[in-house]
Amino acid sequence: MNSIKDRFIKYIHTLQDQICSGLEAADGSAMFEEDNWKRDGGGGGRTRVIADGDVIEKGGVNTSVVFGKLGEMAKKQLKVDYEDFFACGLSLVIHPKSPMVPTIHMNVRYFEIYDDQGDYVNGWFGGGTDLTPYYLDKEDAKFFHTSLKAACDPFGKELYPEYKDKCDKYFYNSHRGETRGIGGVFFDYLKPTTEKTSEDWMQMTQSVGDSFLPIYSKIIATHKEETYTPEQKVWQEIRRGRYVEFNLLHDRGTHFGIKTNGRTESVLMSLPPTVRWEYMHEPERGSREAELVENLKAVDWV
Amino acid sequence: MNSIKDRFIKYIHTLQDQICSGLEAADGSAMFEEDNWKRDGGGGGRTRVIADGDVIEKGGVNTSVVFGKLGEMAKKQLKVDYEDFFACGLSLVIHPKSPMVPTIHMNVRYFEIYDDQGDYVNGWFGGGTDLTPYYLDKEDAKFFHTSLKAACDPFGKELYPEYKDKCDKYFYNSHRGETRGIGGVFFDYLKPTTEKTSEDWMQMTQSVGDSFLPIYSKIIATHKEETYTPEQKVWQEIRRGRYVEFNLLHDRGTHFGIKTNGRTESVLMSLPPTVRWEYMHEPERGSREAELVENLKAVDWV
Repeated sequence: MNSIKDRFIKYIHTLQDQICSGLEAADGSAMFEEDNWKRDGGGGGRTRVIADGDVIEKGGVNTSVVFGKLGEMAKKQLKVDYEDFFACGLSLVIHPKSPMVPTIHMNVRYFEIYDDQGDYVNGWFGGGTDLTPYYLDKEDAKFFHTSLKAACDPFGKELYPEYKDKCDKYFYNSHRGETRGIGGVFFDYLKPTTEKTSEDWMQMTQSVGDSFLPIYSKIIATHKEETYTPEQKVWQEIRRGRYVEFNLLHDRGTHFGIKTNGRTESVLMSLPPTVRWEYMHEPERGSREAELVENLKAVDWV
Repeated sequence: MNSIKDRFIKYIHTLQDQICSGLEAADGSAMFEEDNWKRDGGGGGRTRVIADGDVIEKGGVNTSVVFGKLGEMAKKQLKVDYEDFFACGLSLVIHPKSPMVPTIHMNVRYFEIYDDQGDYVNGWFGGGTDLTPYYLDKEDAKFFHTSLKAACDPFGKELYPEYKDKCDKYFYNSHRGETRGIGGVFFDYLKPTTEKTSEDWMQMTQSVGDSFLPIYSKIIATHKEETYTPEQKVWQEIRRGRYVEFNLLHDRGTHFGIKTNGRTESVLMSLPPTVRWEYMHEPERGSREAELVENLKAVDWV
């Protein structure tokens, strides 16, 4: 019988293959390139990047399986007293060329810690996905959230509302007073309880992971043929600046990677290809750009 | 008799005027636009921005004079136990259009704290400047550091080496293993000692502030007519990405501004206009781009 750990490692590698094939098909032109890397101290990863496609301007779908000793920084951030750890996960960010196609992020992960004898202390699942459009399509927003609700509901009707709320709170640019995008789901520290086993949490996490490709393929198909102006591309680049601000100022995952000497190019693979900062840029009142910004808050899309 | 505080407020406003006039003359086309803002809780600022010039693509020269109560976050970061504070300073970042002209940052500041009765507890000066070229010109580097040494030397020969070392250590992208640029000077917490009065530190700080315009005007004049290729512009945009990474991941000034609910647009005015991230970008061995990266470390330029 395989352990949760071994089965989840196998899952993320299979999912990485499926997602990369699916995205190559959706793009129709660019192909992923793979970079394998080893980590000093144990483990490594499989970074796959795609660039300059017909649909995807820059994207990465990474898996990593790492283990060893937690540094002081990592112990503090994870609030654990043990040193020995194991972590594996899949993490992706896709930045489309067209401002009509939203940027998307998704990740699923599993973490275990061990005592000095190497015995299992506990383990938990985490993950999430959020959608960052440049122009708001309310049908997309409803479809995205309804699909995520459907992925979570089999494991408890209370989960989607809780994870949706966590997502709105987590992907929040406090210094701008706006969410990164239109939300999604976010969950962490899913440990066994009296009602749920690790197996249940793994199934739930996989259900969210499995939902990515059908959701994003449909959103790409809906918008990829839409035309756009150079001004709309500039708007996309300004909004990408907000994405950079979130990832570098607020994202715990990025800080964890940087502070624990993670592989910089894999950690920062999430940053968009071309970005723009203009002083005091504000969209015109009543414009589609203004409509987006007005909806960068907790909205009940289902 | 005017206090140190009042005289330094006057100084930064006069310096702001001089620098803005000087930079407009050096640019020859664009003009600064001014934004006055008030701070909830006390004080405000004068943000001046310039964009789309012949030389300067985006730049800001800001002053602020603020006072009131420090929040918990600010007390922690400043390591002070008192609540009442006063702070004023000038801060500038200039991003030139041409990759042949370096980006520059400079700031000078003064801070005071008071006890519950409103009595002065202590005050300190801080500041610094650093140069971020896209192509290395060793003559520029020597000129920049020699000029800063000349600005500091009258106040003690030990100061320049100490501040130069602090600058190399502060403006360091640890996750990239490289300095932000070719360094400069950085100093903070300059309080009265048995040998130096607040007046001495103010003079020293002003000497660094005064050195900015002649230094940068000369560097602009040296390089502004040089031609460059689209590939060299792309290189500049990739390097600007490192500038963003430093400011958002590591810069204490940015974090202080964001965490204390500073004025976001003024805090983030330092970010470059157009920026680019490419996965695993590395300059060709032996190229001018590689020469720059090889020198992004502590180098004795004087």
